This record gives sequence, C-alpha cells and structure tokens, in this order.
Amino acid sequence: MTSSRSRMISPASTIGIIGGGQLGRMLAMAAARLGYRTVILEPQENCPAAQVANEHIVAAYDDPNALEQLAELCDVITYEFENVPVDAAETLNEIKPVFPPPGALKISQDRVSEKRFLNNAGIQTTQWLSVENEGDLEAALLAFGGKGILKSRRFGYDGKGQAKFSGKKGEKNAKAGFAAIGSVPSILEALVDFTREISVIAARDEAGNIKVYDIAENVHKNGILATSTVPVSVSSTIAGLAADAARKLLEGLKYVGVVGMEFFVLANGTLLANEFAPRVHNSGHWTEAACAVSQFEQHIRAITGLPLGDTRRHSDCVMENLIGDDIAKVPEILKETGAVVQLYGKAEARPGRKMGHVTRITKRL
Amino acid sequence: MTSSRSRMISPASTIGIIGGGQLGRMLAMAAARLGYRTVILEPQENCPAAQVANEHIVAAYDDPNALEQLAELCDVITYEFENVPVDAAETLNEIKPVFPPPGALKISQDRVSEKRFLNNAGIQTTQWLSVENEGDLEAALLAFGGKGILKSRRFGYDGKGQAKFSGKKGEKNAKAGFAAIGSVPSILEALVDFTREISVIAARDEAGNIKVYDIAENVHKNGILATSTVPVSVSSTIAGLAADAARKLLEGLKYVGVVGMEFFVLANGTLLANEFAPRVHNSGHWTEAACAVSQFEQHIRAITGLPLGDTRRHSDCVMENLIGDDIAKVPEILKETGAVVQLYGKAEARPGRKMGHVTRITKRL
Repeated sequence: MTSSRSRMISPASTIGIIGGGQLGRMLAMAAARLGYRTVILEPQENCPAAQVANEHIVAAYDDPNALEQLAELCDVITYEFENVPVDAAETLNEIKPVFPPPGALKISQDRVSEKRFLNNAGIQTTQWLSVENEGDLEAALLAFGGKGILKSRRFGYDGKGQAKFSGKKGEKNAKAGFAAIGSVPSILEALVDFTREISVIAARDEAGNIKVYDIAENVHKNGILATSTVPVSVSSTIAGLAADAARKLLEGLKYVGVVGMEFFVLANGTLLANEFAPRVHNSGHWTEAACAVSQFEQHIRAITGLPLGDTRRHSDCVMENLIGDDIAKVPEILKETGAVVQLYGKAEARPGRKMGHVTRITKRL
Repeated sequence: MTSSRSRMISPASTIGIIGGGQLGRMLAMAAARLGYRTVILEPQENCPAAQVANEHIVAAYDDPNALEQLAELCDVITYEFENVPVDAAETLNEIKPVFPPPGALKISQDRVSEKRFLNNAGIQTTQWLSVENEGDLEAALLAFGGKGILKSRRFGYDGKGQAKFSGKKGEKNAKAGFAAIGSVPSILEALVDFTREISVIAARDEAGNIKVYDIAENVHKNGILATSTVPVSVSSTIAGLAADAARKLLEGLKYVGVVGMEFFVLANGTLLANEFAPRVHNSGHWTEAACAVSQFEQHIRAITGLPLGDTRRHSDCVMENLIGDDIAKVPEILKETGAVVQLYGKAEARPGRKMGHVTRITKRL
C-alpha cells in the first residue's frame, strides 16, 4: 500500500475485532461512538467485548470457518491482544485489510525479533541474548555477570513466563532457570537498575501521519500495571526521546493503528525501550478521561482511514487499575469528584484479574 | 419508598431500557462503562441501542409477554422516550423498580397535566388553556387575542402535532386549526415573545440528593434542536431560577433519574418553563464532552442507587446535532481539534433524522 492511498471505511461499516477482553470492549464502544458496527471473534461466551458489540462469533482465533465468516462480515479487521495467531491474521489480510499489519504482530510475538527490530530502528534496549538451550543460558549469564531476566520468547504477558537471576550465591543454576520457564526458546535480558517506567501511546495512519499522546509514568505491582500517571516526573528530554522512539517504530513497521511502547529510565537518564504491544494499551486508558479523543477512538480512526484526532491532554490525571477485589471499592470511588470509572462487565472478580479502572483528574489544564 | 432507603444495584446486574433509539444507545454504553448488562425492548430490529446492548427483545412496548420477559431479565428498568405506555411502566413497576417513576411519565405525556403540575409546583409557564373541542379553542383564542400555539395534549415531539395562530386577518379559524392537529384533546398556549431558549439537565436519586448541570442555551431549527451552548448568555439570576425550577420539579415528582427541562427567556427577564422530558435529553449531550460524568452515566447512577456524580463542567462547549445529510460532514469535523463526535449507528440518513452530534470544546476552564 502506498502512503498516498486514500481509503476510508465509511460509518455504518463493520469492524472485526479478534479478542473479546476489555480492550476489545473499549474498542467496540469507540467504534460505536463513530457509528461503526463491530463483530467480535472470541471463544469465550459473554466476554466483555461481545456485550457491547453487534455480533459475536464464538470460535477459536484460528478456526478457519470463523475467520472466513469474520472476513465476510467485516470491512476491516483489528485485534486487541498480541497473541493472535499470525497465520490467522495473514489469512484474513488476503481478504480484508488487517490493522495493525500482521508483520508488526509477528515481530511483537517474539521477544528476540522485537528487540532486534527495535535495535535496527535505532532504538536502544537493554542488552539481550537469545537463549535456545541451557548452554546458551549459561553463556548468557556469564556475559551478564550472572544477572538477568529470562523470558520465553513467545506468549508472555503480565510477568508470566519469566525467571530472574540476581547473581547471588546459591541461586538456581541455568538448568533450573531454563526449566522454570518451560525449557522454551527464550531471551536473557540484562538486569537494569531503572528508576522509572514510562510508556508512550502513539498512532499512525496509512498516509503516514503520526500522533503521539503525552508520556505516562507507570508503576507495576506483581508484574501487573497498577497506575499510570500523566505528566511524568522525568525530564522533557527523556519524554521527547520516548516519543521519537515511538515514531521510529511506527515508521519502521509501516504501522497502522495505535501502539503502546514501554521504556525503562535509568538513574543516569538513559532511556531503554522494553517492549511494544501492537494494540491499544493499558497505560493509555487515561486518554479517555483526559483527552478529547481516546486511544480507542484513535485506533478506530487509524484503521478506518478517518483523520487522526488531537492527542493533547486537557487534564493531569492518574489511572489506577481495579484488580480483583478492588471492584468492591467502586461505590466509594464514584463519590469522588473528577473520578472517571470504567468497568469491564466481568461477572467474577478473581485475584489478579483486571476488573476495571478509574482515572482521577488531578488538575485541569 | 422513603428517602432513607438505601438500595444499590451492584455492577454485573442488568438494566432494562424501553426504547431503542440514540438515547437508549448512549444509556446502554454508559451502563456498560459501569459494568452493567443491558436489555433493550424495541420493536425495530438492529436499532441504535440494541447494537451496543447485551440483549434485544424485539417486540412492541406494550407486548405483555415481552414486558414479562423484560421484568424477569432485569434488576431495574428505565426508558429513553416519554411515549412509553404508562400501563406498561406501571405493570413492570409492580415486579421490578421502574425509574423515572411511572407517575412522572404519566404527567409528562399530557401537556395539560404537565403545565398544571409545573404551576402547582410554583414553576411559572406560559399562559395556557385546555382545549377539548372547537368551541374551547374559539374561547381560548379570544382570551389570548387570537394568538397561540395549539398542541395536541399527547404524543407530540419535535414540533409535530402543532398549529400556530398569529392573530392575523384571514388566518385559519378555530375549526380549521382544531382539524389541523387531528381534532384531538389539546392545549392552547399563549404565544410568548421569547428571546432565548434554555434548558437544564438535573438528576435526583432515591435518597433525595439532587445534582444539576450547567444551563445550556438552545437553538431550534424547524422544530428540531440544532445547537446547545454552554455557558448561556443569560444572567446568572435566570440560570439560577432555571436550576431552582428543576429542583422543585424533581422533588414534586419524587423523581429518580435524569430529567430535561426547557424554558423560554423573555426580553424582560421572565423565565417560563415550557416542558420537561422524563429522560436524558438532547440538550444535555454536551455533558459527555465537558463533564467527568455525563448525563447518561448520571442517569444510570441514579437508577441503580450509585452515588450521583459531579456535574461541574471542565470546558465551555457547543453541541451541534448532525441531522440527515450532515452525516457527510463527519470526516471533515473529525479533523477539528477538540471536536467530540458521537454517531448513532443508523444506516440510512433521512431528512430530519438525528444521525449523531458533535460537541466542540470552545474553551478549557
């Protein structure tokens, strides 16, 4: 596709969304706000997204009949999580446009490809080494002074599929560490002594226009995002570097849609990219409360060829995830002035399960 | 129900909405944001509200089986238009709570009851006389100097079912005028030489708490709302009187939910109530773009017993309805900075049909 191509999916068209979680739910609502119909492909009945969508195809993400049906019903197809089977995305893309492009999806699914792509695009990451077996891990640990985080190359999220080596005596050896993550192809990332985690949410359209939201500062607890705060407490130079990195990534991938990109900030001011997600991102939920156009609407605009929206925030704010039993706090939270609550329609509050989020407006600008 | 009663419908409960238009759609989305499920009762297939709701009962508003099904599926029931059959609302209310209360619905459906209620509550309206037949109309026209607007007592909206008498020679007589509106029980309202139309959106919960949004100034074209602007250009005294009138109305009706109330402002500063709608209101759509809690979420909070939200606006704004072919302007509007667009998922753009609206933020406060 050339950058001069002008394609626009007119409202009352239909958008397919692979994945039925809260991100799909908020995408479906943003699509509805712009008059679009939505079809969700998700094996789980009564999933968060299907509750607010026009149609729900209850089937596995790689079910050939379901994919055919999805392609038939929809004018454009997107996804809400990065573990969508690449084959499925590629198959669909031969029939109807799939955004973000399956190539970006493929790169994001493999931590080695991801790091390599970032580095080749001129974006600095932590040091890393590919690990295929125990021997590789032993060599990699030696190179990194016995320290590092071992992550499976594929299908990790929210801290799952990881093992940490802190270089202390008596710690698990390479054999035990490799076994701990399931003896699968992995990556060892050097431990970095970061002071802050920040992220950037950005969007690119087919014509190559790019819009970047303000950088957020993130706090994780137990490997799950707890809060995102805007503005960040890092220098504007660092924030600018993060935005530049997102632009490089989007251009390098010839990306269409919204991307979420996470970074570590070191004490000496170095910025290291950690990973990117080819989708709307938890650390961008604040945009719905503090911007005229949320990341969800921005994604829908990007994939349908509508003009990208203004990304300036009108307020400072803090987004807090409501996890598990946090849901019980909602009635109290609703009493707060300037608290914007979004719940995901999940019937059961399990520990560690994201049930909703609240964005507290801390200052009107 | 006493004002001390504390009832709360917990999230993951189900809200029934009678009526499937854009107001039902935006209510359903607001309900989803708070984690509620929704069921729409609406005879039209693929209606705007059903597209974003969990379930759709395709049946007439007074279908006994459908009402039974609705009551069974839902924990609380509301409606999005004021012509819901009162019998249906009362029947449902015996099984599950219906808000706003059927009593308010009943009063709002009859312009004579409505005016009488407003006057009894100490709220000034235009002069009016009840018209049962041609003779009544003749006498009423005589009393009002030959001038007035004849309106059917029931089932009028967007200027339909009305006939104007301007007191000019050669104009239609009482017989023709009464025939023009279908010879149905009517009301003759004295013509008022108003300079502005304003409206107030307010909410009351079961405990008697009341929250009032800022007053909006409205411009109608061809009997249909064209724009709502906040802030109004009238004095704060007049704005205060309008808010007070809304409070009186809500208390008088022992109302639960959001109400929309319209007023005329005369050149001499007199404020006259025109009518109220027992539902969310087109002139309150701006709240979604300029307040932390929209009128839609406020209504859901009120009927489910959640705390009412803050009604202060963070921005000045102008809401413009997108009617008929206006829908074609959307791609251009989306290029504007600070324009918040909401479309209703209607496939066909007919003249006079509300297709969506845009709220333009004119100033951040």
